[in-house]
Amino acid sequence: MEKTIFESVYEKIFPFWNEISDNDREFICKNSISLSYKKGTNVHDSSECSGVFFIRSGCLRVYMMSEDGKDITLYRLYAGDMCMLSASCVLKTITFDVFIDAEEDSECYVVNGPAYAAISERCPNVKIFSLELAVSKFSDVMWVMQQILFMSLDKRLAIFLCDESARIKSDIILLTHEQIAKYIGSAREVVSRMLKYFANEGIIEVSRKGIKILDKNRLRMLTF
Amino acid sequence: MEKTIFESVYEKIFPFWNEISDNDREFICKNSISLSYKKGTNVHDSSECSGVFFIRSGCLRVYMMSEDGKDITLYRLYAGDMCMLSASCVLKTITFDVFIDAEEDSECYVVNGPAYAAISERCPNVKIFSLELAVSKFSDVMWVMQQILFMSLDKRLAIFLCDESARIKSDIILLTHEQIAKYIGSAREVVSRMLKYFANEGIIEVSRKGIKILDKNRLRMLTF
Repeated sequence: MEKTIFESVYEKIFPFWNEISDNDREFICKNSISLSYKKGTNVHDSSECSGVFFIRSGCLRVYMMSEDGKDITLYRLYAGDMCMLSASCVLKTITFDVFIDAEEDSECYVVNGPAYAAISERCPNVKIFSLELAVSKFSDVMWVMQQILFMSLDKRLAIFLCDESARIKSDIILLTHEQIAKYIGSAREVVSRMLKYFANEGIIEVSRKGIKILDKNRLRMLTF
Repeated sequence: MEKTIFESVYEKIFPFWNEISDNDREFICKNSISLSYKKGTNVHDSSECSGVFFIRSGCLRVYMMSEDGKDITLYRLYAGDMCMLSASCVLKTITFDVFIDAEEDSECYVVNGPAYAAISERCPNVKIFSLELAVSKFSDVMWVMQQILFMSLDKRLAIFLCDESARIKSDIILLTHEQIAKYIGSAREVVSRMLKYFANEGIIEVSRKGIKILDKNRLRMLTF
């Protein structure tokens, strides 16, 4: 029964699904589990090979962390996304560690890492799919790096607020300054200061609950 | 004749060389050129598909650049290394641009991008090799990002001086502060200040020509 649930999803998300054998398909399904994570819990920790994640609902945050606990968001995964960096045993050329937390209550299908790696070694199409997924994240990470290294904070913050407002289809963003700081790779104090600046300019309104965008046009001007 | 030169190198560096057809091998050789770059010249510019580089001698610096011209070194390529990020038409999931300069007089073999891409589309092994090469650079870049985001400058600078001294097998490093700043992802002023600090501590001696390491042990202490 379980198998049928996984199979109906996998045939849609894995482009190689019809190119591998019945046995391999069954093997992947047998090595899959459905997992739920409460908001705020850790999903993947550093160098473990947790497996290949497919996000059914919710939101996972992928980040890197320094020895002294500072972290920086690389990207977020939403329903329909897949994560390969959580399966370091599949991609041997990946030698760095990422961490993943659930930012909202999240449901995932997870294919066991070593099982997926075995299929990937046997089937070039599976390997190509996995590597391409990883390389596409390389592009995401380079974008983050560009933002952090080269872009001034006002611009980064304005872009984040515009993107987030578009994503949630609301002018009210219910995130703490701490959360925003993590998203844009800055410190809470710095973000708070900049938000205050935006508020003083009448672009936004800051309350304890969150941020309300008052002047979308001016905010958008800052993103150029 | 030319073909023979390329072939003798390619059979050593491409693990897929014996797995592709005679025709494909000939096609790759026919679409290869040998290029020389003078120290300081630009090798690859942003989003062009310059091709796949194999470095015969010298040193290429791969970096990213902001709109206003700030740049940051991602990694350097030495004799024996290959570069896939200079062939964006081969890896479609790579959506970011890098720049490459020759840091020393350098000689390269370059396989034409579209020609290599054609073979890569036909042969899964070629594609896997290319993707794995790109993913290994993902790991390098993540390391740089760790350094820049999380590590204090004194540590970064000390690590750079130790590594560079070991690489060139000399205690005298003939680089400008500007060059060092590029390597460690900082600004010249900041590096000059830190070098002065190291010099005041008797760890190094700074002259117009370069840097001389005086106290290797203390420098090494700083890298921990």
